Formats: sequence, C-alpha cells, structure tokens
Amino acid sequence: MARQGILHRYEKDLPLTRATPRITLMEGDTPLIHLKNLSRELKVELWAKFDGLNPTGSFKDRGMVMAVAKALEEKTTAVICASTGNTSASAAAYAASAGLACFVLLPAGKVALGKLTQALIYGAKVVAVKGNFDEALQLAREAALSKKITLVNSINPYRLWGQRSAAWEICDELQKAPDWIVLPVGNAGNISAYAAGLEYYKEIGKIDSMPRLMGVQAEGAAPLVLGRIVEKPETVATAIRIGNPVNAEKAVRAIEMSNGKFDAVTDTEILEAQRELASQDGVFAEPASCAPLAFLLKQKRAGKLSEGLRIVLILTGNGLKDPDSPLQGLPGPISAEGTLEALKGVLGL
Amino acid sequence: MARQGILHRYEKDLPLTRATPRITLMEGDTPLIHLKNLSRELKVELWAKFDGLNPTGSFKDRGMVMAVAKALEEKTTAVICASTGNTSASAAAYAASAGLACFVLLPAGKVALGKLTQALIYGAKVVAVKGNFDEALQLAREAALSKKITLVNSINPYRLWGQRSAAWEICDELQKAPDWIVLPVGNAGNISAYAAGLEYYKEIGKIDSMPRLMGVQAEGAAPLVLGRIVEKPETVATAIRIGNPVNAEKAVRAIEMSNGKFDAVTDTEILEAQRELASQDGVFAEPASCAPLAFLLKQKRAGKLSEGLRIVLILTGNGLKDPDSPLQGLPGPISAEGTLEALKGVLGL
Repeated sequence: MARQGILHRYEKDLPLTRATPRITLMEGDTPLIHLKNLSRELKVELWAKFDGLNPTGSFKDRGMVMAVAKALEEKTTAVICASTGNTSASAAAYAASAGLACFVLLPAGKVALGKLTQALIYGAKVVAVKGNFDEALQLAREAALSKKITLVNSINPYRLWGQRSAAWEICDELQKAPDWIVLPVGNAGNISAYAAGLEYYKEIGKIDSMPRLMGVQAEGAAPLVLGRIVEKPETVATAIRIGNPVNAEKAVRAIEMSNGKFDAVTDTEILEAQRELASQDGVFAEPASCAPLAFLLKQKRAGKLSEGLRIVLILTGNGLKDPDSPLQGLPGPISAEGTLEALKGVLGL
Repeated sequence: MARQGILHRYEKDLPLTRATPRITLMEGDTPLIHLKNLSRELKVELWAKFDGLNPTGSFKDRGMVMAVAKALEEKTTAVICASTGNTSASAAAYAASAGLACFVLLPAGKVALGKLTQALIYGAKVVAVKGNFDEALQLAREAALSKKITLVNSINPYRLWGQRSAAWEICDELQKAPDWIVLPVGNAGNISAYAAGLEYYKEIGKIDSMPRLMGVQAEGAAPLVLGRIVEKPETVATAIRIGNPVNAEKAVRAIEMSNGKFDAVTDTEILEAQRELASQDGVFAEPASCAPLAFLLKQKRAGKLSEGLRIVLILTGNGLKDPDSPLQGLPGPISAEGTLEALKGVLGL
C-alpha cells in the first residue's frame, strides 16, 4: 500500500480536529531494516528504524508536519525557529509546502553555510543574529508572541506528538513491542515521545509489554548520564551536541518508566559504529544516529549483552546530512597502474 | 502495510528463480508526492516520484538489488564497477549487506574524495587507476571475466530489470497511467527501463494507455537531442554528464514507442527548477533530477503546456547528494542585531 503521511495514517491517535489540514510530504513509514550481519555478530535480533529516509532526511519531519498543520489551523502566517540543523531544514520544507513564511534564526559567525543549504533552498529567511544560541532562541520566542507567527522549536508541544508515530510504526510492523529500543539523546524530546507513544499503545492494547528505552549520549555532551548541565558540550555527533536538554525531566521519567538506562559513548566509538553499520549491513546514518550501535558494541565487549534480545536502533538522520565526518577514519583510494595485472595485485585477486 | 523491497513486491514480474536470494535494503516504495503549489502554477496535475528516498539516496538501488541478488545466485564473491557517483554508492551498500566484496574503479586524480564517501564507508575497495573513465570501465570489464566477479555497471542486464519497478509503483499508486512521465536522461538506461516496464504493464492489462515519455538532458550534455556524441559533456547536473549514452538506441525506441520526445535545458534552468521545487513544494532533489521540472517550466513559458495533464516527474536522486550546487544561486543569511526591533525590521514584520 502507498504511503499516506502520518496525519492520515494515525489520524485517530493524534490531536487533530476537523479543522486541522491533513498536510504531508509523505513523512513516516520509514523502513525497518533487519541488520542480518550485525545480528549474527552480536547474537541478537537487530533492527534499524531508518528515519533518515524521511523527506528532509531526519525524524524531525514527524513532528514538524504536526506543528505546521496546527499553525495552519491556528491561521498563523509564518513559523520561526532557532536552529542550525535538522529542525530548520524540516521547518523550511513544511512551511514552503504549506505556503507559510519560515524564519530561521542562528548565532552570527558560528555556523558553516553548508549546514544551511536545506533551509535556504526550501526558501526560509535565514537571519544571523548577534549573540549566542540561547539568545537567538529567546528572540525567536519573543517574535512568536505575535499571534501570526508560530514557534516550531521543540518547545512546540505538537512536535513531540508527531514524533510518537515512529514508536507506533515499529510496533505495528513487528506486531509486538521489541525488547529494547535504543535512541540517541540530545535535547531528549524524542525519547520522551517514544515513551509517550509506547505507553499509549500499551493502554489501547496494541502492545502487551513495555520495551526498555536505552538513551545514548556522546561522552562530551552527556548531561543525563552525569546528572548535571554540561557547559561546553563537544562531540562529532552534532545532532546531539547539547549540554542542557529541554526535555531532561521527561526523559528521566521515560527511562524510569521503561526500566531503561542512559549511557555515554566516545566519538571514536560513534565513528566506529557508523563504519560498522555501513560496511556490514549497508546502512549509512549520521554520526548521532550511530551512538545506539556504539552502545551495543560496548555492551557486547563487556559481556553484558544477553543473547536473543529483539532490539531496534533508532537512526534519526541520513548519513548524507554530514558527509565529512566519516572520512576521518576511512582509508582513501588505493592507486594502481591501468593494467589487469596491476589491478589484480592491489585487490589480492 | 510495511515495505518489503522490490524483489518481494514484484516477485512475479522480475526474472527471479527459486535460487535467487530475496535480499533487500528496503529499496523502492518511494513516495509519490503531489506537488500542490507547482500544479496550481502550471495548471497541470503534477506529481513527483521521489526516488532520492531509496536507501542509498538514488534510483540506482532498484537495479542494484537485482544485480547483486543475481550475483549471489551465480555464486560470485565480488562485484566491480567503474563509477564515481550513485552507482558506486549503491553497489557498495548492497555488496556489504550481501557479504560480497565490492571494487570501485575510477580515473586517478579526477575525482573529489567527497563524492566517494558513500562507497568508502560502505566498505568498498576504491582503486584509482591511471587513465580516463573509459579505460577504468574497460579494466572493470576485464576483471569481471573471471567467473567470481560480477560487473554491475549498467551493462549488467539485471540493473534495468530492477529499474522497471519505479514505473510499476507509479501506475499501481495512481491506479492508471499518467499522461506524461518526465525523466532526466544521461546514460539512457532508466528511460529504457520505464519504457519496458510500462509496455509490460500494458501487456498484462494493468494500464490501458501508454504515457508519453519525455527525456530531458542538460544542454552541455545532450547527445540524444543533438543526435551525435558529445566529446566533452559539461553540466552542473553531474548524474547526467554523459556524452555517449550506453543505451542510446533503446532510449530512442522508448521515445518513439511512447510518442514522447527528447529536449535539453540549460544549467541555469536546472538550478532554477531545483529552487522552485524546494521552495514551492518542499522537495529537495539533486540537480539532474530537476531537469524534468526545468523542461515543464520552459514549455509553460512557451505556451506549450496543455492544461490538466497528469504528469509525473522522476526525481532520481536526493538533494543531499550534492549540497554545494544549490548554494550558487541562493541568497545567504541576513544579518541583524539581537533585538526584537532589529529582527522585525529585517523580516518586514
């Protein structure tokens, strides 16, 4: 059956009214890929939910379609966000399609233009404001106090509503809850959305058991593991480079409710996991998305991974979003003369 | 219903035997997106088949899954190709997942490393050989004469078989054939695959009429429009920068059979179409994929586009594959002081 987008597919499960326009860029219904080779290596049943195949390349589209539909219902004329990454790309795409203006604020002088290609091509007005990221966000909040502009940063409650749909798709497809769901954690909104989505599915009888939610952070940006704000978060996984998560409390509740845990992995472990995922099972995800596999590989090495578990890794973003990071750890091309003998030599044939 | 991959979905329509392994990275079943805003502007019913949402970001996955499945059936241990772009990425991903080695040959000194990130991270052995592209391809052919190595360049007949699936999906979803299908044309394999797929669907009664196939080339690389080989093809649309198409004869037949035509558009028109597609309907495709829309915009300006036609644009690759080209024609960020007044000023609020 063809994709419909999440507002159609989960119409009865989302807070839609008759006046909410059922917009879509065909987000959601992303593939759940069985990772055959890594399953064998780790002796578990391993799946990847590849949310990098959403229309703008990340899971943000699930929440943004809700936020923009509600902005239309509330008759605003523009959306605004402070973001340098996946959120701005998603906001700009949905606003374009919906005929709304999109304003993206970011701290002047601190963002490479390449990160903004998507927002710019989708037609957003990008404003570089003096100050740091928090000041840009504060300014976006103030601008959104006007009734005609909707703030679509993760403070927007509809974002997390839409993000629940990923958990629902996993359970619908497996026809039961997996044992574990392992997610990257930055601002901690997504893990909260999974928890809420799973609790709802349990309540309405779609699943019998609650999967353990494992929230994985980067070591240089691990406030939820450390239990304190990190002033200068640093990691190659830019999508989770956050020192003071907006949804920290909800995330802690999600972990407790599901008997899960937080853990942190190093940048080296993240890039290694990225290479393993791609070279063993043919899936290329952005660095943040590979923190969950890094966690599993670490558990395995420590002898702490029980055999036979059914585990779903959440790949939040497409590897094409950040094509430079993986090159750091990779061997380059081999050189050869243009003869068959020379070729056979370098390929060991 | 969840995706299955094309070897499952079209099992009865593809040349599979019981011994062909039904491998998949969940290719195919890509969204057919209704372009509401461009439809209104062009006064047609316009759809985009977004094949950039295949697992490695391009339509090549549809053919590669067939080629690699057949390589496994034939018990080869490696695949080889000469490619600098989408083909090498796809070959490397499917080979990785299938447990085959993948060798990618390219002309030494002529390819930027960034184009190879995907092939490298999927674990291909990339060899830079002395000589030009044709010599690299010749070397790949020679290496593949060994029974244990399968050539997966477009000469491999199973590639075009798999690519038929895109035409089938469009007809299945619309429940009839569209009036036009507009495709970018480089090596001319894909348009041939669409023609073959559509003829088959007509034969088995799935569609009543044959859509007109419109093949669009870049002006600097338009051998099929000019009717002669182009020695030094040049265009920003790298995926169709080909001067001597392998499948030229088949493509000419496809155009004749469907009462279609070839046309060419300029790089400026391609980049303009890329911005229109993204900023009007929120879809970001690589430059080559935007040649079809450039063609329609040109027809419209010339008063040659009939109202009400149902048209499907084939978006062969994801915009994230080539994030630099669009920046050429885009305005950069606007600067502002960090106050609400200053912000309102630059945004005209």
